[in-house]
Amino acid sequence: MQRGFAQAEFENRTRRAQEMMHAADLDALVLTTEADVRYFSGYLTRFWESPSRPWFLVVPAEGKPIAVIPSIGAALMGQTWIDDIRTWRAPDVTDDGVSLLTDTLNSVAKRSIGTPMGPESHLRMPLSDWTRVKAGLNASVQDDAGIVAQLRAVKSVAEISKIEHACAIAGRAFARVPEIAGHGVPLSRVFRDFQRLCLEEGADWVPYLAGASAKSGYGDVISPASDAPLEAGDVLMLDTGLVWDGYFCDFDRNFSVGEPSEQTGTAYARLIGAVDAAVDIVRTGTTAAQLFHAMDAIVTGGAGGSDAGRLGHGLGMQLTEGLSLIPDDHTVLELGMVITLEPGVEVGAGKILVHEEDIVITDGAPRFLSPRAGRDMVQL
Amino acid sequence: MQRGFAQAEFENRTRRAQEMMHAADLDALVLTTEADVRYFSGYLTRFWESPSRPWFLVVPAEGKPIAVIPSIGAALMGQTWIDDIRTWRAPDVTDDGVSLLTDTLNSVAKRSIGTPMGPESHLRMPLSDWTRVKAGLNASVQDDAGIVAQLRAVKSVAEISKIEHACAIAGRAFARVPEIAGHGVPLSRVFRDFQRLCLEEGADWVPYLAGASAKSGYGDVISPASDAPLEAGDVLMLDTGLVWDGYFCDFDRNFSVGEPSEQTGTAYARLIGAVDAAVDIVRTGTTAAQLFHAMDAIVTGGAGGSDAGRLGHGLGMQLTEGLSLIPDDHTVLELGMVITLEPGVEVGAGKILVHEEDIVITDGAPRFLSPRAGRDMVQL
Repeated sequence: MQRGFAQAEFENRTRRAQEMMHAADLDALVLTTEADVRYFSGYLTRFWESPSRPWFLVVPAEGKPIAVIPSIGAALMGQTWIDDIRTWRAPDVTDDGVSLLTDTLNSVAKRSIGTPMGPESHLRMPLSDWTRVKAGLNASVQDDAGIVAQLRAVKSVAEISKIEHACAIAGRAFARVPEIAGHGVPLSRVFRDFQRLCLEEGADWVPYLAGASAKSGYGDVISPASDAPLEAGDVLMLDTGLVWDGYFCDFDRNFSVGEPSEQTGTAYARLIGAVDAAVDIVRTGTTAAQLFHAMDAIVTGGAGGSDAGRLGHGLGMQLTEGLSLIPDDHTVLELGMVITLEPGVEVGAGKILVHEEDIVITDGAPRFLSPRAGRDMVQL
Repeated sequence: MQRGFAQAEFENRTRRAQEMMHAADLDALVLTTEADVRYFSGYLTRFWESPSRPWFLVVPAEGKPIAVIPSIGAALMGQTWIDDIRTWRAPDVTDDGVSLLTDTLNSVAKRSIGTPMGPESHLRMPLSDWTRVKAGLNASVQDDAGIVAQLRAVKSVAEISKIEHACAIAGRAFARVPEIAGHGVPLSRVFRDFQRLCLEEGADWVPYLAGASAKSGYGDVISPASDAPLEAGDVLMLDTGLVWDGYFCDFDRNFSVGEPSEQTGTAYARLIGAVDAAVDIVRTGTTAAQLFHAMDAIVTGGAGGSDAGRLGHGLGMQLTEGLSLIPDDHTVLELGMVITLEPGVEVGAGKILVHEEDIVITDGAPRFLSPRAGRDMVQL
């Protein structure tokens, strides 16, 4: 697999953004988050883990994006397609990029600047500095009209390949779970060892791992692992978001420690059935809400959902991004969108099972990016 | 090592925040980021990797903090010391916690609400929703007067133990680098295998790994690993921020592939000398700027710094947090602060070596949390 993208990928993203900016009457976009900056620049580094320095990318109405970044990033940004790289020596206690960003924006925008303000967005810089930037601008700042989210929602062929590669790595790691998990093994050790398997199978890193192991089903799916040993009758669930070249997979697998109970087996079969029901209708033109209802009919009989809040979501540069499979999200699926199908089902009081697959939307049946799970749980 | 904290830890953090809020005339704090929410609640989950849902913690002037969170987090938050947990079913396309947060804040704050707006902070929620929240408040919102950052900067004994535990894990992994790295091994494989070693040695996860390998020194320290094989004469640097129970270590180690050149050996000796110079003066009452100058005198002869921008920083719940060792940061070191000493030195045109250790501030000589590096580079 080739890392990175051809320059045409970034040219295309930028051109499409500029077309949409023109339609929305925006002179420039200002971007502050890892994924948004990377989407237009190709700037890939784990250095964002440090909150100490802000990073900015300005997309003007014409021409290439402009990077306004700490000087520690200049060498790496210089390897991308970006030519105009403006740096300051950060952290700076009096002016941490504020005047450099303000000047840059004023040089390209006279009237209106967009920045993502909608669902899932945040502004990755101190609010006090943002106030100072806005006070120095000639233009006014407004929502980006959803431009960045809309662009990122539809994946290119190259992006889909990266997600598929990440999914294949996770698939091989899941296939090896019987090597590391079984009766008596502490869940915390399973978590550490599963991340190790992901790395051995080719992950660059493993930003996300959640899971649980409990009798017949689990209470929640976001807790850290305890040191409790796996026991006969447990269902072990591991849900990973590993990254390859900046793109995530996000799917889970359930394992039965010993023979599953009839109740557990039935519940698992409903999860598989819910995915089948989604697959029957998922293609271009289907809405997120329709997918929700197709699965919800199977897992709750049409109750309208659960506390988990959704039965799937978009996927790509972030573990979750874009649409949600909920009753009120009427996003129409487009060719090249990558989403997860993530039905959950109750198994007795307060316990659930959750299953997740990753697919790409086509004109016909979806293509599975995750190696589709079998109809029966793997026994450990 | 015991995971988690005694409840007294959170009571103490909350009480001190409330004392400072009283002095700053704040009726409440509203917190939105992973570290800030966890600091006062103990809520620990990797689920923050998903940007789809906002999470809020409100610290009122009296009493326990109040959690305002998506219902998917209720079970886990219910395991913390927080009693008042208010949930909504997220994501919600029309009201994603906005009215619930607004009502909660109005119930505890009549005049003034603080939220972190200073260095390193950001508001982890959509700006459009923040605007709606502010419009519905009886109180005005202002900077938190640095309260949260000040509290987090000084670590408790229990926090220091967790950081030390993380450092010990990384120390064991670094000691095993000769198992995985050497002439001809691709850097990308070293990166994957080093993360594997961190997990084998007990890391919960490995959020951060940076590094490089190049002849006599490296060009930058934040790039992803290439597939280029290690060659004789290279200096391999690995810099990890692994996590144990929610606390980071952050230090690096340099390795010489074969015999180091005289130039490289001399440069490395200056890094060790810079740490020695810092150790000579670092204790309660020393300022961040004084530490910078002590090291800068050794590594540049007193030039005033480099593009990396700083020679160390605070450390704890985040990879980097709090003070920076730069000329303009006059933060006075206090008992219990945990910082890194991170001198860098130029080795010929455009190449550098960087060395990093983690220490805790005491009334006398600092205590090393990272197992202090030897005076000579380990040869591979």
